[in-house]
Amino acid sequence: MKTSARNQFAGSVAALRDGAVHDEVELEIAPGLRLVATVTRTSRVALGLEVGRAATALIKASTVVLVTEAEGMRFSARNQFAGKVESVVAGAVNDEVTIALPAGLRVVAIVTRASSQAMGLRPGVAATALVKASSVMLVTAA
Amino acid sequence: MKTSARNQFAGSVAALRDGAVHDEVELEIAPGLRLVATVTRTSRVALGLEVGRAATALIKASTVVLVTEAEGMRFSARNQFAGKVESVVAGAVNDEVTIALPAGLRVVAIVTRASSQAMGLRPGVAATALVKASSVMLVTAA
Amino acid sequence: MKTSARNQFAGSVAALRDGAVHDEVELEIAPGLRLVATVTRTSRVALGLEVGRAATALIKASTVVLVTEAEGMRFSARNQFAGKVESVVAGAVNDEVTIALPAGLRVVAIVTRASSQAMGLRPGVAATALVKASSVMLVTAA
Repeated sequence: MKTSARNQFAGSVAALRDGAVHDEVELEIAPGLRLVATVTRTSRVALGLEVGRAATALIKASTVVLVTEAEGMRFSARNQFAGKVESVVAGAVNDEVTIALPAGLRVVAIVTRASSQAMGLRPGVAATALVKASSVMLVTAA
Repeated sequence: MKTSARNQFAGSVAALRDGAVHDEVELEIAPGLRLVATVTRTSRVALGLEVGRAATALIKASTVVLVTEAEGMRFSARNQFAGKVESVVAGAVNDEVTIALPAGLRVVAIVTRASSQAMGLRPGVAATALVKASSVMLVTAA
Repeated sequence: MKTSARNQFAGSVAALRDGAVHDEVELEIAPGLRLVATVTRTSRVALGLEVGRAATALIKASTVVLVTEAEGMRFSARNQFAGKVESVVAGAVNDEVTIALPAGLRVVAIVTRASSQAMGLRPGVAATALVKASSVMLVTAA
Protein backbone atom coordinates (compact mmCIF):
# COMPACT_ATOMS: atom_id res chain seq x y z
CA MET A 1 0.00 0.00 0.00
CA LYS A 2 1.16 3.50 -0.87
CA THR A 3 -0.72 6.49 0.44
CA SER A 4 -0.61 10.26 0.14
CA ALA A 5 -1.11 10.60 3.91
CA ARG A 6 2.35 11.73 5.05
CA ASN A 7 1.95 10.29 8.51
CA GLN A 8 1.65 6.53 8.96
CA PHE A 9 1.90 4.87 12.35
CA ALA A 10 1.73 1.10 12.66
CA GLY A 11 0.50 -0.25 15.97
CA SER A 12 -2.06 -2.42 17.67
CA VAL A 13 -5.43 -1.63 19.18
CA ALA A 14 -5.00 -1.02 22.92
CA ALA A 15 -8.50 0.13 23.88
CA LEU A 16 -11.95 0.77 22.45
CA ARG A 17 -14.77 3.00 23.63
CA ASP A 18 -18.32 2.72 22.29
CA GLY A 19 -20.46 5.52 20.95
CA ALA A 20 -23.72 5.71 19.03
CA VAL A 21 -22.32 6.69 15.62
CA HIS A 22 -18.62 7.00 16.42
CA ASP A 23 -16.33 4.71 18.39
CA GLU A 24 -13.04 5.74 19.91
CA VAL A 25 -10.03 3.56 19.15
CA GLU A 26 -6.68 3.75 20.95
CA LEU A 27 -3.70 2.47 19.02
CA GLU A 28 -0.34 1.83 20.67
CA ILE A 29 2.23 3.05 18.13
CA ALA A 30 5.34 2.84 20.34
CA PRO A 31 5.91 1.60 23.88
CA GLY A 32 3.74 3.84 26.05
CA LEU A 33 2.71 6.06 23.13
CA ARG A 34 -0.94 5.92 22.14
CA LEU A 35 -2.86 7.49 19.33
CA VAL A 36 -6.62 8.05 19.52
CA ALA A 37 -8.91 7.82 16.49
CA THR A 38 -12.66 8.18 16.15
CA VAL A 39 -14.23 6.01 13.46
CA THR A 40 -17.83 5.22 12.69
CA ARG A 41 -19.27 2.07 14.23
CA THR A 42 -19.70 0.65 10.72
CA SER A 43 -15.98 1.06 10.02
CA ARG A 44 -14.99 -0.46 13.33
CA VAL A 45 -16.94 -3.60 12.47
CA ALA A 46 -15.73 -3.66 8.85
CA LEU A 47 -12.09 -3.41 9.93
CA GLY A 48 -12.50 -5.94 12.73
CA LEU A 49 -11.04 -3.52 15.26
CA GLU A 50 -10.66 -5.39 18.56
CA VAL A 51 -8.04 -5.09 21.28
CA GLY A 52 -4.76 -6.58 20.08
CA ARG A 53 -5.58 -6.17 16.37
CA ALA A 54 -2.74 -4.77 14.25
CA ALA A 55 -3.74 -1.51 12.56
CA THR A 56 -2.09 1.47 10.90
CA ALA A 57 -3.09 5.08 11.45
CA LEU A 58 -3.00 7.52 8.52
CA ILE A 59 -2.89 11.25 9.22
CA LYS A 60 -2.80 13.91 6.54
CA ALA A 61 -0.09 16.49 7.11
CA SER A 62 -2.63 19.25 6.45
CA THR A 63 -4.68 18.27 9.51
CA VAL A 64 -1.80 18.66 11.98
CA VAL A 65 -1.67 21.85 14.08
CA LEU A 66 1.66 22.89 15.59
CA VAL A 67 2.02 24.77 18.88
CA THR A 68 5.04 26.17 20.67
CA GLU A 69 5.41 27.80 24.09
CA ALA A 70 2.27 25.98 25.19
CA GLU A 71 3.17 25.45 28.82
CA GLY A 72 0.10 25.62 31.03
CA MET A 73 -2.36 25.20 28.16
CA ARG A 74 -4.75 22.30 27.62
CA PHE A 75 -5.88 21.30 24.14
CA SER A 76 -8.98 19.40 23.08
CA ALA A 77 -6.99 17.56 20.41
CA ARG A 78 -6.68 14.02 21.74
CA ASN A 79 -3.28 13.51 20.18
CA GLN A 80 -0.47 15.76 21.39
CA PHE A 81 3.03 14.82 20.30
CA ALA A 82 5.86 16.86 21.81
CA GLY A 83 9.12 16.95 19.89
CA LYS A 84 11.54 19.17 18.01
CA VAL A 85 11.46 20.61 14.52
CA GLU A 86 13.66 18.50 12.30
CA SER A 87 13.18 20.26 8.96
CA VAL A 88 11.15 22.94 7.20
CA VAL A 89 10.47 22.83 3.46
CA ALA A 90 9.27 26.23 2.30
CA GLY A 91 6.53 26.80 -0.27
CA ALA A 92 4.82 29.96 -1.51
CA VAL A 93 1.75 29.68 0.73
CA ASN A 94 2.46 26.55 2.80
CA ASP A 95 5.50 25.09 4.55
CA GLU A 96 6.04 21.43 5.29
CA VAL A 97 7.39 20.96 8.80
CA THR A 98 8.74 17.67 10.20
CA ILE A 99 8.68 17.15 13.97
CA ALA A 100 10.93 14.46 15.45
CA LEU A 101 9.45 12.72 18.51
CA PRO A 102 11.50 11.16 21.31
CA ALA A 103 10.24 7.67 20.43
CA GLY A 104 12.00 7.90 17.06
CA LEU A 105 8.76 8.69 15.27
CA ARG A 106 8.18 11.69 13.04
CA VAL A 107 5.12 13.82 12.40
CA VAL A 108 4.82 15.92 9.24
CA ALA A 109 2.64 19.05 9.25
CA ILE A 110 1.62 21.42 6.49
CA VAL A 111 1.18 24.90 7.92
CA THR A 112 0.86 28.27 6.27
CA ARG A 113 4.14 30.00 5.58
CA ALA A 114 2.94 33.00 7.56
CA SER A 115 2.45 30.80 10.65
CA SER A 116 5.72 29.01 10.17
CA GLN A 117 7.58 32.29 10.07
CA ALA A 118 5.63 33.89 12.91
CA MET A 119 6.40 30.87 15.09
CA GLY A 120 10.07 30.89 14.12
CA LEU A 121 9.97 27.21 13.17
CA ARG A 122 13.43 25.96 12.31
CA PRO A 123 15.42 22.82 13.13
CA GLY A 124 15.85 22.30 16.87
CA VAL A 125 12.87 24.37 18.02
CA ALA A 126 10.62 22.55 20.51
CA ALA A 127 7.09 22.11 19.14
CA THR A 128 4.03 20.00 19.79
CA ALA A 129 1.95 18.45 17.00
CA LEU A 130 -1.79 18.35 17.69
CA VAL A 131 -3.99 15.89 15.84
CA LYS A 132 -7.72 15.58 16.36
CA ALA A 133 -8.99 12.02 16.84
CA SER A 134 -11.41 12.66 13.99
CA SER A 135 -8.51 13.37 11.59
CA VAL A 136 -7.11 9.86 11.89
CA MET A 137 -7.92 7.10 9.39
CA LEU A 138 -7.28 3.49 10.34
CA VAL A 139 -6.18 0.69 8.04
CA THR A 140 -6.12 -3.07 8.66
CA ALA A 141 -5.20 -6.02 6.48
CA ALA A 142 -8.23 -7.88 5.18
CA MET B 1 -23.80 29.08 -5.30
CA LYS B 2 -20.05 29.08 -5.83
CA THR B 3 -17.79 27.33 -3.39
CA SER B 4 -14.09 26.81 -2.80
CA ALA B 5 -14.68 23.12 -2.09
CA ARG B 6 -13.28 21.48 -5.23
CA ASN B 7 -15.51 18.44 -4.93
CA GLN B 8 -19.25 18.83 -5.30
CA PHE B 9 -21.57 15.88 -5.71
CA ALA B 10 -25.30 16.41 -6.23
CA GLY B 11 -27.54 13.59 -5.12
CA SER B 12 -30.44 12.60 -2.93
CA VAL B 13 -30.58 11.25 0.58
CA ALA B 14 -30.76 7.44 0.44
CA ALA B 15 -30.49 6.56 4.12
CA LEU B 16 -30.13 8.09 7.58
CA ARG B 17 -28.73 6.70 10.80
CA ASP B 18 -29.29 8.35 14.18
CA GLY B 19 -26.66 9.23 16.75
CA ALA B 20 -26.60 11.34 19.90
CA VAL B 21 -24.67 14.33 18.55
CA HIS B 22 -23.92 13.18 15.00
CA ASP B 23 -26.17 11.55 12.42
CA GLU B 24 -24.97 9.58 9.45
CA VAL B 25 -26.39 10.54 6.06
CA GLU B 26 -26.04 8.47 2.88
CA LEU B 27 -26.33 10.38 -0.36
CA GLU B 28 -26.75 8.63 -3.71
CA ILE B 29 -24.57 10.63 -6.11
CA ALA B 30 -24.74 8.27 -9.11
CA PRO B 31 -26.65 5.03 -9.75
CA GLY B 32 -25.35 2.62 -7.12
CA LEU B 33 -22.74 5.07 -5.83
CA ARG B 34 -23.26 6.35 -2.30
CA LEU B 35 -21.43 8.93 -0.26
CA VAL B 36 -21.59 8.93 3.55
CA ALA B 37 -21.51 12.12 5.62
CA THR B 38 -21.73 12.69 9.35
CA VAL B 39 -23.46 15.89 10.38
CA THR B 40 -24.65 17.14 13.74
CA ARG B 41 -28.26 16.41 14.65
CA THR B 42 -28.92 20.17 14.65
CA SER B 43 -27.73 20.45 11.04
CA ARG B 44 -29.77 17.46 9.94
CA VAL B 45 -32.90 19.14 11.23
CA ALA B 46 -31.95 22.58 9.89
CA LEU B 47 -31.34 21.17 6.42
CA GLY B 48 -34.47 19.01 6.45
CA LEU B 49 -32.47 15.93 5.57
CA GLU B 50 -34.94 13.09 5.00
CA VAL B 51 -34.83 10.15 2.61
CA GLY B 52 -35.43 11.37 -0.93
CA ARG B 53 -34.34 14.97 -0.23
CA ALA B 54 -32.03 16.49 -2.84
CA ALA B 55 -28.70 17.52 -1.34
CA THR B 56 -25.19 18.34 -2.49
CA ALA B 57 -22.02 17.12 -0.81
CA LEU B 58 -19.00 19.45 -0.57
CA ILE B 59 -15.56 17.95 0.03
CA LYS B 60 -12.39 20.00 0.31
CA ALA B 61 -9.58 18.66 -1.85
CA SER B 62 -7.22 18.92 1.12
CA THR B 63 -9.20 16.33 3.09
CA VAL B 64 -8.88 13.61 0.43
CA VAL B 65 -6.28 10.86 1.00
CA LEU B 66 -5.05 8.89 -2.02
CA VAL B 67 -3.94 5.26 -1.89
CA THR B 68 -2.49 2.96 -4.51
CA GLU B 69 -1.64 -0.74 -4.42
CA ALA B 70 -4.16 -1.15 -1.62
CA GLU B 71 -5.33 -4.68 -2.45
CA GLY B 72 -6.21 -6.58 0.69
CA MET B 73 -6.37 -3.50 2.92
CA ARG B 74 -9.42 -2.16 4.72
CA PHE B 75 -9.78 1.54 5.48
CA SER B 76 -11.89 3.24 8.13
CA ALA B 77 -12.73 6.06 5.71
CA ARG B 78 -16.35 5.50 4.81
CA ASN B 79 -15.91 6.85 1.30
CA GLN B 80 -13.56 4.96 -0.99
CA PHE B 81 -13.62 5.92 -4.64
CA ALA B 82 -11.53 3.79 -6.98
CA GLY B 83 -10.45 5.36 -10.25
CA LYS B 84 -7.50 6.51 -12.31
CA VAL B 85 -5.36 9.60 -12.12
CA GLU B 86 -6.50 12.04 -14.77
CA SER B 87 -4.14 14.95 -14.12
CA VAL B 88 -1.51 16.26 -11.71
CA VAL B 89 -0.90 19.99 -11.22
CA ALA B 90 2.43 20.49 -9.46
CA GLY B 91 3.09 23.09 -6.78
CA ALA B 92 6.11 23.76 -4.58
CA VAL B 93 4.82 21.89 -1.53
CA ASN B 94 1.48 20.48 -2.68
CA ASP B 95 0.19 18.85 -5.86
CA GLU B 96 -3.39 18.86 -7.05
CA VAL B 97 -4.41 15.44 -8.31
CA THR B 98 -7.64 14.67 -10.17
CA ILE B 99 -9.00 11.12 -10.04
CA ALA B 100 -11.54 10.06 -12.70
CA LEU B 101 -14.15 7.58 -11.41
CA PRO B 102 -15.93 5.01 -13.61
CA ALA B 103 -19.29 6.73 -13.05
CA GLY B 104 -18.00 9.81 -14.89
CA LEU B 105 -17.42 11.66 -11.63
CA ARG B 106 -14.12 13.26 -10.60
CA VAL B 107 -12.46 13.66 -7.22
CA VAL B 108 -9.77 16.31 -6.69
CA ALA B 109 -7.15 15.81 -3.96
CA ILE B 110 -4.43 18.08 -2.66
CA VAL B 111 -1.48 15.96 -1.53
CA THR B 112 2.06 16.89 -0.66
CA ARG B 113 4.44 16.92 -3.60
CA ALA B 114 6.67 14.45 -1.78
CA SER B 115 3.78 11.96 -1.56
CA SER B 116 2.72 12.52 -5.12
CA GLN B 117 6.22 11.76 -6.36
CA ALA B 118 6.77 8.81 -4.02
CA MET B 119 3.51 7.27 -5.23
CA GLY B 120 4.35 7.90 -8.87
CA LEU B 121 1.03 9.63 -9.49
CA ARG B 122 0.61 10.44 -13.17
CA PRO B 123 -2.25 10.15 -15.67
CA GLY B 124 -3.50 6.60 -16.01
CA VAL B 125 -2.30 5.28 -12.65
CA ALA B 126 -4.97 3.44 -10.67
CA ALA B 127 -5.69 5.14 -7.34
CA THR B 128 -8.38 5.24 -4.69
CA ALA B 129 -9.58 8.45 -3.06
CA LEU B 130 -10.46 8.10 0.62
CA VAL B 131 -12.79 10.61 2.25
CA LYS B 132 -13.83 10.49 5.87
CA ALA B 133 -17.57 10.89 6.49
CA SER B 134 -16.71 13.74 8.85
CA SER B 135 -15.01 15.66 6.03
CA VAL B 136 -18.22 16.01 4.03
CA MET B 137 -20.44 19.10 4.22
CA LEU B 138 -24.00 18.89 2.95
CA VAL B 139 -26.00 21.64 1.26
CA THR B 140 -29.72 21.84 0.54
CA ALA B 141 -31.90 24.51 -1.01
CA ALA B 142 -33.91 26.43 1.58
CA MET C 1 1.29 30.04 23.19
CA LYS C 2 2.03 30.24 19.50
CA THR C 3 0.17 28.03 17.05
CA SER C 4 0.16 27.26 13.35
CA ALA C 5 -3.63 27.42 13.28
CA ARG C 6 -4.25 30.69 11.47
CA ASN C 7 -7.61 31.24 13.10
CA GLN C 8 -7.80 31.84 16.85
CA PHE C 9 -10.92 33.06 18.56
CA ALA C 10 -10.94 33.76 22.28
CA GLY C 11 -14.28 33.47 24.02
CA SER C 12 -16.21 31.81 26.79
CA VAL C 13 -18.33 28.67 26.84
CA ALA C 14 -21.96 29.65 26.32
CA ALA C 15 -23.60 26.22 26.05
CA LEU C 16 -22.85 22.51 26.12
CA ARG C 17 -24.66 19.54 24.63
CA ASP C 18 -23.93 15.97 25.65
CA GLY C 19 -23.22 13.04 23.35
CA ALA C 20 -21.88 9.51 23.82
CA VAL C 21 -18.39 10.04 22.41
CA HIS C 22 -18.58 13.66 21.28
CA ASP C 23 -19.94 16.71 23.09
CA GLU C 24 -20.97 19.93 21.43
CA VAL C 25 -19.53 23.15 22.83
CA GLU C 26 -20.73 26.65 21.97
CA LEU C 27 -18.23 29.42 22.45
CA GLU C 28 -19.22 33.10 22.40
CA ILE C 29 -16.40 34.82 20.51
CA ALA C 30 -18.02 38.26 20.12
CA PRO C 31 -21.30 39.72 21.36
CA GLY C 32 -23.98 37.57 19.76
CA LEU C 33 -21.47 35.57 17.71
CA ARG C 34 -21.13 31.91 18.62
CA LEU C 35 -18.82 29.22 17.39
CA VAL C 36 -19.69 25.53 17.70
CA ALA C 37 -17.08 22.83 18.30
CA THR C 38 -17.41 19.09 18.79
CA VAL C 39 -14.86 17.56 21.13
CA THR C 40 -14.64 14.13 22.68
CA ARG C 41 -16.13 13.69 26.15
CA THR C 42 -12.65 12.95 27.47
CA SER C 43 -11.36 16.30 26.20
CA ARG C 44 -14.31 18.17 27.59
CA VAL C 45 -13.53 16.83 31.04
CA ALA C 46 -9.77 17.32 30.68
CA LEU C 47 -10.24 20.96 29.66
CA GLY C 48 -12.83 21.65 32.34
CA LEU C 49 -15.27 22.98 29.78
CA GLU C 50 -18.28 24.35 31.65
CA VAL C 51 -20.55 27.30 30.89
CA GLY C 52 -18.68 30.54 31.55
CA ARG C 53 -15.21 29.00 31.17
CA ALA C 54 -12.76 31.03 29.06
CA ALA C 55 -11.54 29.06 26.04
CA THR C 56 -9.91 29.71 22.71
CA ALA C 57 -10.91 28.06 19.44
CA LEU C 58 -8.23 27.10 16.92
CA ILE C 59 -9.22 26.53 13.29
CA LYS C 60 -6.78 25.55 10.57
CA ALA C 61 -7.11 27.72 7.46
CA SER C 62 -7.13 24.56 5.32
CA THR C 63 -10.40 23.38 6.88
CA VAL C 64 -12.36 26.51 5.94
CA VAL C 65 -14.68 26.33 2.92
CA LEU C 66 -15.68 29.59 1.21
CA VAL C 67 -19.00 30.14 -0.54
CA THR C 68 -20.37 33.05 -2.51
CA GLU C 69 -23.79 33.69 -4.03
CA ALA C 70 -25.23 31.26 -1.51
CA GLU C 71 -28.64 32.93 -1.05
CA GLY C 72 -31.33 30.34 -0.39
CA MET C 73 -28.89 27.54 0.43
CA ARG C 74 -28.53 25.76 3.77
CA PHE C 75 -25.22 24.26 4.84
CA SER C 76 -24.54 21.49 7.34
CA ALA C 77 -21.43 23.31 8.56
CA ARG C 78 -22.39 24.62 12.00
CA ASN C 79 -20.23 27.70 11.66
CA GLN C 80 -21.12 30.14 8.90
CA PHE C 81 -19.39 33.48 8.98
CA ALA C 82 -20.56 36.03 6.41
CA GLY C 83 -18.12 38.78 5.49
CA LYS C 84 -16.06 40.30 2.72
CA VAL C 85 -12.77 39.27 1.19
CA GLU C 86 -10.03 41.43 2.64
CA SER C 87 -6.99 39.98 0.89
CA VAL C 88 -5.83 37.13 -1.34
CA VAL C 89 -2.26 35.81 -1.24
CA ALA C 90 -1.62 33.72 -4.33
CA GLY C 91 0.39 30.51 -4.39
CA ALA C 92 1.05 27.97 -7.13
CA VAL C 93 -1.65 25.49 -6.06
CA ASN C 94 -3.28 27.21 -3.09
CA ASP C 95 -4.36 30.76 -2.27
CA GLU C 96 -4.69 32.21 1.20
CA VAL C 97 -7.88 34.25 1.51
CA THR C 98 -8.75 36.50 4.46
CA ILE C 99 -12.40 37.25 5.14
CA ALA C 100 -13.26 40.26 7.32
CA LEU C 101 -16.36 39.76 9.49
CA PRO C 102 -18.65 42.59 10.66
CA ALA C 103 -17.68 41.96 14.32
CA GLY C 104 -14.09 42.99 13.53
CA LEU C 105 -12.96 39.38 13.42
CA ARG C 106 -11.10 37.76 10.53
CA VAL C 107 -11.20 34.24 9.12
CA VAL C 108 -8.32 32.94 7.00
CA ALA C 109 -8.96 30.17 4.45
CA ILE C 110 -6.61 28.19 2.26
CA VAL C 111 -8.39 27.29 -0.97
CA THR C 112 -7.12 25.95 -4.25
CA ARG C 113 -6.01 28.61 -6.71
CA ALA C 114 -8.43 27.18 -9.26
CA SER C 115 -11.34 27.73 -6.87
CA SER C 116 -10.18 31.17 -5.89
CA GLN C 117 -10.03 32.24 -9.52
CA ALA C 118 -13.29 30.55 -10.51
CA MET C 119 -15.05 32.34 -7.64
CA GLY C 120 -13.47 35.68 -8.52
CA LEU C 121 -12.25 36.18 -4.96
CA ARG C 122 -10.73 39.63 -4.55
CA PRO C 123 -10.93 42.36 -1.92
CA GLY C 124 -14.48 43.55 -1.35
CA VAL C 125 -16.28 40.47 -2.63
CA ALA C 126 -18.94 39.15 -0.24
CA ALA C 127 -18.18 35.61 0.90
CA THR C 128 -19.14 33.24 3.68
CA ALA C 129 -16.63 31.08 5.54
CA LEU C 130 -17.95 27.63 6.50
CA VAL C 131 -16.30 25.71 9.32
CA LYS C 132 -17.41 22.28 10.48
CA ALA C 133 -17.79 21.92 14.25
CA SER C 134 -15.45 18.92 14.03
CA SER C 135 -12.68 21.13 12.59
CA VAL C 136 -12.43 23.28 15.71
CA MET C 137 -9.89 22.61 18.47
CA LEU C 138 -10.40 24.18 21.88
CA VAL C 139 -7.73 25.41 24.28
CA THR C 140 -8.01 26.40 27.93
CA ALA C 141 -5.46 27.51 30.50
CA ALA C 142 -4.54 24.77 32.94
